[in-house]
Amino acid sequence: MVSEQGKRAANGVSQARLLNNLAALARFGALPSGGVNRQALSADDLDARAWLIELALSLGCEVSTDACANLFIRRAGMQDLPPVVTGSHIDTQPSGGNLDGCYGVMAGIECLSALNEAGITTQRPLEVVVWTNEEGSRFAPGAMGSSAFVNPDCLAGYLDNQDRDGVTVSAALTNCHRRFADLPRRVKYPMAAFIELHIEQGPVLEQAGLSLATVQGIQGVRWYQIRCVGQSAHAGTTPMNRRADAMTLARRLTDRIERAVADVPADQLRLTFGCWRVAPNAINTVAGEVSFTIDFRSPDDDALARFDALIAGLAADNVIVTPSLRQPPIAFDAHLLAQQQACCDALDIPTAKLVSGAFHDAMYLAQHCPTSMFFVPSRNGVSHNPAEYTDPHSLWLGARALACCLTELANPLTGVNS
Amino acid sequence: MVSEQGKRAANGVSQARLLNNLAALARFGALPSGGVNRQALSADDLDARAWLIELALSLGCEVSTDACANLFIRRAGMQDLPPVVTGSHIDTQPSGGNLDGCYGVMAGIECLSALNEAGITTQRPLEVVVWTNEEGSRFAPGAMGSSAFVNPDCLAGYLDNQDRDGVTVSAALTNCHRRFADLPRRVKYPMAAFIELHIEQGPVLEQAGLSLATVQGIQGVRWYQIRCVGQSAHAGTTPMNRRADAMTLARRLTDRIERAVADVPADQLRLTFGCWRVAPNAINTVAGEVSFTIDFRSPDDDALARFDALIAGLAADNVIVTPSLRQPPIAFDAHLLAQQQACCDALDIPTAKLVSGAFHDAMYLAQHCPTSMFFVPSRNGVSHNPAEYTDPHSLWLGARALACCLTELANPLTGVNS
Repeated sequence: MVSEQGKRAANGVSQARLLNNLAALARFGALPSGGVNRQALSADDLDARAWLIELALSLGCEVSTDACANLFIRRAGMQDLPPVVTGSHIDTQPSGGNLDGCYGVMAGIECLSALNEAGITTQRPLEVVVWTNEEGSRFAPGAMGSSAFVNPDCLAGYLDNQDRDGVTVSAALTNCHRRFADLPRRVKYPMAAFIELHIEQGPVLEQAGLSLATVQGIQGVRWYQIRCVGQSAHAGTTPMNRRADAMTLARRLTDRIERAVADVPADQLRLTFGCWRVAPNAINTVAGEVSFTIDFRSPDDDALARFDALIAGLAADNVIVTPSLRQPPIAFDAHLLAQQQACCDALDIPTAKLVSGAFHDAMYLAQHCPTSMFFVPSRNGVSHNPAEYTDPHSLWLGARALACCLTELANPLTGVNS
Repeated sequence: MVSEQGKRAANGVSQARLLNNLAALARFGALPSGGVNRQALSADDLDARAWLIELALSLGCEVSTDACANLFIRRAGMQDLPPVVTGSHIDTQPSGGNLDGCYGVMAGIECLSALNEAGITTQRPLEVVVWTNEEGSRFAPGAMGSSAFVNPDCLAGYLDNQDRDGVTVSAALTNCHRRFADLPRRVKYPMAAFIELHIEQGPVLEQAGLSLATVQGIQGVRWYQIRCVGQSAHAGTTPMNRRADAMTLARRLTDRIERAVADVPADQLRLTFGCWRVAPNAINTVAGEVSFTIDFRSPDDDALARFDALIAGLAADNVIVTPSLRQPPIAFDAHLLAQQQACCDALDIPTAKLVSGAFHDAMYLAQHCPTSMFFVPSRNGVSHNPAEYTDPHSLWLGARALACCLTELANPLTGVNS
C-alpha cells in the first residue's frame, strides 16, 4: 500500500538538517533566557519569512502569498493538479518555544529537501504553507490566516483589530506586503489534501512511550462564563445563615458540574475552571460577586449536548450563564488517516491514535479539503513555554512519516482525487 | 441600682439635636450620590475636627490632643479623677456612611449637652474622644489612634506609612497639629472606663427586633493565606488524570475546612474565603497557582486553637500556609456590662447581648482600662456603604443609655474606682 518512492522520500529526511533549520528559525525573536517571542507580522516574523523564502527559492520552489499574508511554498508536480499541502505557523506565544507551529513548517521544508535529494518528482505539486497569526497572541482571533484563506469573507472583519500598541491588522498586513512586494498574490484555490504535523502539547504520547500519533480529529469545545451574584458583607459581623456568599455559590456550582461529568473516564475528560474574578476580593469581606469560566471539551457530540443542557440548567436569578465559544468536534479524513497509518507501518513507526484537544489551522482546512494531522510527543506535556521540547528522534520520525505520506498522496496511484 | 441623676441625664438627650449634629458632621466629605468619604487627616477630616472643637467649646468643654492627633473633649467633674470616657472615630471608608464611628462621637457630644441641660455635674470628668484613623483606609494600620494612645511606642512604627499619593502619616499628623496648634498636648493618662457606642454592622439586632445590645466582647480572629501550587497546563490537551490543577486543590481545601467546622451553629460561625488570586487566570489554561484567604472568627479560645491546628494540618509541599493576623477574643469588663444592663433596665430599653465580629477602638482601650460597648442595629446589616442606616429611635435610645451609664460611672456611689 506504500510505494517505493514514498519510502525513498522518507529515507531522504535528514535529522541534522531538520534540527539545523529549526535552530536557524528559532534565532528570529529568540529570548535572552531561551525560548522565542515571535509575534505575528512583527519585525522578527518578517525577518523569519525572508529567511524562509530564501530557503524555499534555494530548493527550487515558487513562493506566493495572499491577502492575509499566508506564505505558499510550492514544489511543482508533473501535472498542474490541486496540490497536496502541509505546513503550520511560525508565530509564537510571548514566551514560547521553538517547536509549536515551527516544527510543522520546517518538517514540510525538510520533506521538499528530501524529495530533491531522492530525485523524486510527484504527479501533483507539493506545498508548504505558513499560516499567519495562528496563536492570536498579538491580534485576535487566532488561526487568522487559515480561517481567512478558507473563508475569505472573514478577513474584512479582522482588519481593524488592534494589538496592544494600537497597530491594526490592516497596517501590519500592509507592512508585510510592502516588504515582500515581489511575491505573486493568490486567492483561495483547491487543495487535494492538507496534513499538519505538530507537537502534541499534551502528555499522552510521552506517557505511552511513542514517537508519533495519527490525529483522528479535534475535540468539540464549549466555553461558558458563569456569573454568581451574592451580597458583599462584613466577614466578622454577618452570621453564615444571613450570608449570600457568591464564592460559596460558585464553589457549589463547580462541584455540581464536576459530579455531573464524573462518569467520563479521567483520561478522556477535559473540564477546566480556569479564570476567576472575585469582588470585592478582600480578606474580610464576603464575596458579593464571583465570575468563573468553564472550558469543556469532548470528541462526542452527544456529550457536548448533555453538557450544554447541564449548564443551561444552572441559570437562575443569581446565576447568569453566558456561552462564549461553541466549536463542534471535527473528524479528520478517513482516507488520509488510512494513508498515514500505512506509511507509518511501512516505515516501522509505532503510532497512537489521538484526538487533538488544542485548536490548529487544520481545524479550518478541514472545511476546505481532506485534512488530517500527525502529532509528535511534548516532554511533560509542556508547550507555549521555553521548556517546550521534543526528542530529535521523534522529530525525525515525524518528518519521515510526513515525507512518505505527502509523496503517496501526490502520486495518482495512491493519492486522493482532485 | 440607677440613680435619679442617671435617669435625668438620659432624659436630657434630644433626638432632634443628635440627628442635626450627625447631619452636620456628614457634610464634611459628603459624596454627591450620598454617603461620606472622609479619610483620616484629610482636609475634610480637619474641617470636621474644627467644627467639632467649636461645638465642644460652646458646651464649655476643654479640648486637647496628643501625638497621634486623637482629640479629647473634656467636661470637668467635681474632682480631678481619671475620667469616664466615650467616643469612637470620624474617619470613613472611601464610600462610607454617616454613622460608622460618627454616631459614637456625636452621641457622646449629645450626652454632654444633655448633662448641661439637666444641670448635672458628675464627680469624675467625662470625656468624648475622637480616635484618629480607625478605618485604616488611607493609612495602614486601622485603629491607629487608639493603639498609639494605649501603646505609645507603636506610633514610631506608623510614621513612615504612606497613603496612595505617597503622603506619610508623619506629614499628615504635622499638618493636623499645625492647624490646631493652640490645643494642649496630652500623653497616655489613666481612664476610669471607656464605653464605645457603635452601629452593629451586622444583621442580628435588626432580625431580633431590638434597638440596643450590650457588647460582651470582640471575637478572636485568624487570618491565613493559603497558596496552592499546581502546574499550569493546556485545558484541551491535558487529561484530568495528568493535571495538577491548583484551583481543584484550593476547592478541595475549602471543602475540607468547611466540613471541619460544620459542628459550629450557623448563627455563630464566621468563615470567609474572601480574596482569591488565580494564575495564569485564563479560560483555556489549568490554574498553576491559586492563593486564597481565610477569615475565621470566634469568641471561643478553644475553637480558635482547634482552627489553627486544622489549618496547620493542611500544609504540604504544594500547600503553603501563611498566618497573617492572630487576634485573641476580648471579653469586655463585667462591671461595666452590669452597669449598662442596669441603665437599660431602668430606662425600659430591651437589649440583646452580642459579641462584636468587627474590630473597634475599644479593642485597644480594653488593654488600658475597664472597657465595653453598646450596639444599635444596622439596617440589612449594611455598613461601609452610603446605604448604612439606623432608625432615629434606636439612635436616640442608644444615646439615652450611654448618657445614663456615663453619669452613673462618673459618680462615686455607683462608679468604678480609679
